[in-house]
Amino acid sequence: MLTEDAFASLTKYWDNGMKEFFKVTDLKRVLEYRTEFPQVDTEEIPLLETVGRILAEDIVADVDLPDFPRAIVDGYALQGASTFGASEGNPAYLNVTGSIAMGESPELTIGPGEAVRIATGGMLPQGANGVVMIEHTEAIDDATIEAYRSIAPGQNMISIGEDIKKKSRVLMQGQMIRPQEAGLLAALGRQKVAVFQKPIIGIISTGDEIIPINETPNLGQIRDINSYTLTGLIHEAGAQAISFGIVRDDFETLLEKCKLALNQCDMILISGGSSVGTRDFTVDVLSALEDAKILVHGISISPGKPTILAKVQNKAFWGMPGHVVSSMIVFSRVVRPFVKHFSGQTHGQEKEHRLNAILTRNVASTQGRVDFIRVRLRQEEDKLCADPVLGKSGLISTMVFADGLVEIDINTEGLDKGTEVQVIPM
Amino acid sequence: MLTEDAFASLTKYWDNGMKEFFKVTDLKRVLEYRTEFPQVDTEEIPLLETVGRILAEDIVADVDLPDFPRAIVDGYALQGASTFGASEGNPAYLNVTGSIAMGESPELTIGPGEAVRIATGGMLPQGANGVVMIEHTEAIDDATIEAYRSIAPGQNMISIGEDIKKKSRVLMQGQMIRPQEAGLLAALGRQKVAVFQKPIIGIISTGDEIIPINETPNLGQIRDINSYTLTGLIHEAGAQAISFGIVRDDFETLLEKCKLALNQCDMILISGGSSVGTRDFTVDVLSALEDAKILVHGISISPGKPTILAKVQNKAFWGMPGHVVSSMIVFSRVVRPFVKHFSGQTHGQEKEHRLNAILTRNVASTQGRVDFIRVRLRQEEDKLCADPVLGKSGLISTMVFADGLVEIDINTEGLDKGTEVQVIPM
Repeated sequence: MLTEDAFASLTKYWDNGMKEFFKVTDLKRVLEYRTEFPQVDTEEIPLLETVGRILAEDIVADVDLPDFPRAIVDGYALQGASTFGASEGNPAYLNVTGSIAMGESPELTIGPGEAVRIATGGMLPQGANGVVMIEHTEAIDDATIEAYRSIAPGQNMISIGEDIKKKSRVLMQGQMIRPQEAGLLAALGRQKVAVFQKPIIGIISTGDEIIPINETPNLGQIRDINSYTLTGLIHEAGAQAISFGIVRDDFETLLEKCKLALNQCDMILISGGSSVGTRDFTVDVLSALEDAKILVHGISISPGKPTILAKVQNKAFWGMPGHVVSSMIVFSRVVRPFVKHFSGQTHGQEKEHRLNAILTRNVASTQGRVDFIRVRLRQEEDKLCADPVLGKSGLISTMVFADGLVEIDINTEGLDKGTEVQVIPM
Repeated sequence: MLTEDAFASLTKYWDNGMKEFFKVTDLKRVLEYRTEFPQVDTEEIPLLETVGRILAEDIVADVDLPDFPRAIVDGYALQGASTFGASEGNPAYLNVTGSIAMGESPELTIGPGEAVRIATGGMLPQGANGVVMIEHTEAIDDATIEAYRSIAPGQNMISIGEDIKKKSRVLMQGQMIRPQEAGLLAALGRQKVAVFQKPIIGIISTGDEIIPINETPNLGQIRDINSYTLTGLIHEAGAQAISFGIVRDDFETLLEKCKLALNQCDMILISGGSSVGTRDFTVDVLSALEDAKILVHGISISPGKPTILAKVQNKAFWGMPGHVVSSMIVFSRVVRPFVKHFSGQTHGQEKEHRLNAILTRNVASTQGRVDFIRVRLRQEEDKLCADPVLGKSGLISTMVFADGLVEIDINTEGLDKGTEVQVIPM
């Protein structure tokens, strides 16, 4: 946009000289603002839908798992002592007194020198404390076997509570549910689980040059790319996206749209231009909302400096940069941690996956800000190479070509070719 | 299970001695069987739903992106030549002849020594080939500025086609759509996109000792964990899961259930026991289906050896191991690549994310098979440590504690403490 208002802002900015540059906030400080915002409410959902969601309750086992001793091989349940010293040359002889039916509690009892047939998953009878594998036995007749191995108590079986002990806290609120956590909840018979709701994140596109994707742009117009990249990133972050469409650069219209979004969302992204006029305009609109406080007006990162964060009635409003690459990087490195916070995810956040790779070119950087370099990964024999992707931050093609980002911290002037770097997948 | 049939199998197996062990198939060979199966059909879906899906068409740009020259900074559009040699001490003087409205094609033309105000995203007028940033100018009066930088042609702007060239193939069939690919499709005005359907994967649980999770197990019974871990893994792999419930170990019942699943699914997982009886029973049932061929009867991996793969009427039927850890690992390392193949994903598969970490204990392994070791990741100062997670493959708690797997290849006897390993996240 560059309406009369915008021109006024641009001029005001120009009159202020370079002062704006000194107001930017450190990335670290920006991320600390997370704690100013509340977590979303919780809900109970069916177990089958929980994978990827954040647990909203501590889970304490109400039973031992397993609650009976189980065989984990096919063979013969017995008293380990009956086999002590047994070997190929000196087998132990055992009387086979029966067999175990699956899913039932055996009524027979095992004494010294006795064995019963058992399959994987079967319940060990009273008196038995181990299982000899069928491969390590030979049948002499219908009622007698030779065993060629010495079986220690507890061998080839799972004891009561060996998996999970009754009354132990097995999962914690704030943990993401993976398939294995869903399996554990199934083992405990949990058909419904309390999880945090998916945060609802609104997207408001602004800019007089932006048109919906179903329209054909005139010269000077471009289609609304950022709504689509941001929606994808929001979904990947485990949240829901609502698009509020494209708003003309008009104060009242944007103000009304912000109020509407405030009612429906936990967080709102205003995807606007990167021009100073647009930024100031966004700040003016946000400031006009009730109970609003501008927390951040520029971040010392590149790309992504022209990012605004406001707290409005306990909700986070972001003024996102307009360049598509900047917008994606700001979402990934700045907004996403806030989404995780809103989502209730308090455990395991530190385990973000980064891939070690060798940088294949020198990369320059500026001290005093965090730089994010796009890279493309390439396997070369047994090492992973990260080729820097050059190109302006307005080019979506560079993100399509890239596989991830390399972060260059605030105190580093650049990275040399051959440096081992950690790549954040994108 | 250990019905009469199972006992018969167990005995038959025992009679065969150790022969079964020599029939196992190499992991590499198992994965090659993927190409025996067809890909799923394609469908057209709205762009907003495409992230995570596999593209089923090549995308060729029908326009240049951008199709007009755009400013990427706030400042003045001009002819670069008008500023050549300009510096702080020797500014260039320019006549400001107007300003550019956003989203419109400017009618004015720039000549030598002329400049127009332009904001980020604005269209450069005829004659202009660069933009000087407002920070590098000073207004002398309403119609004149000083510029302190020499602007090269193309500087601070995006030229026509600089992002995407018309007629270039920008995306390929078989590629996964990430947020940035969705953004590119938006830029091209694609409201609907052809993608591969999500494969439908059926789960049939077998075992007389298995009960639904809403029931309270008697002694000897356990709840159906594997249906839940597998459903989660299926969803994570981008497919749909259908549960066919728990089937008693009865030939006719399982056969009928398999026929039902065959009609509704692209792939079927029979989650059964690891006992030899169960395995042989599963093989017998699969062999009884029309047009069935058993491709794999055991894989040289640990855990997960007792895994069966059959091809039935162009669909893949798996006999999954019963131990929960084995079942999850087999899905992740063996079944998932088949899911990707069914899904049409032919590009980017090689870019599986593995995390470099330092192994903190010696780990033993057996030559002649691929071992998968569970590990828990821990950040220690600036290095990532992988602590091996010990415990039997029937213990779900070990997977809850673990963050990933380390693969020990077929020719390696073990790994020493301190080795740098690559962790497959799970």
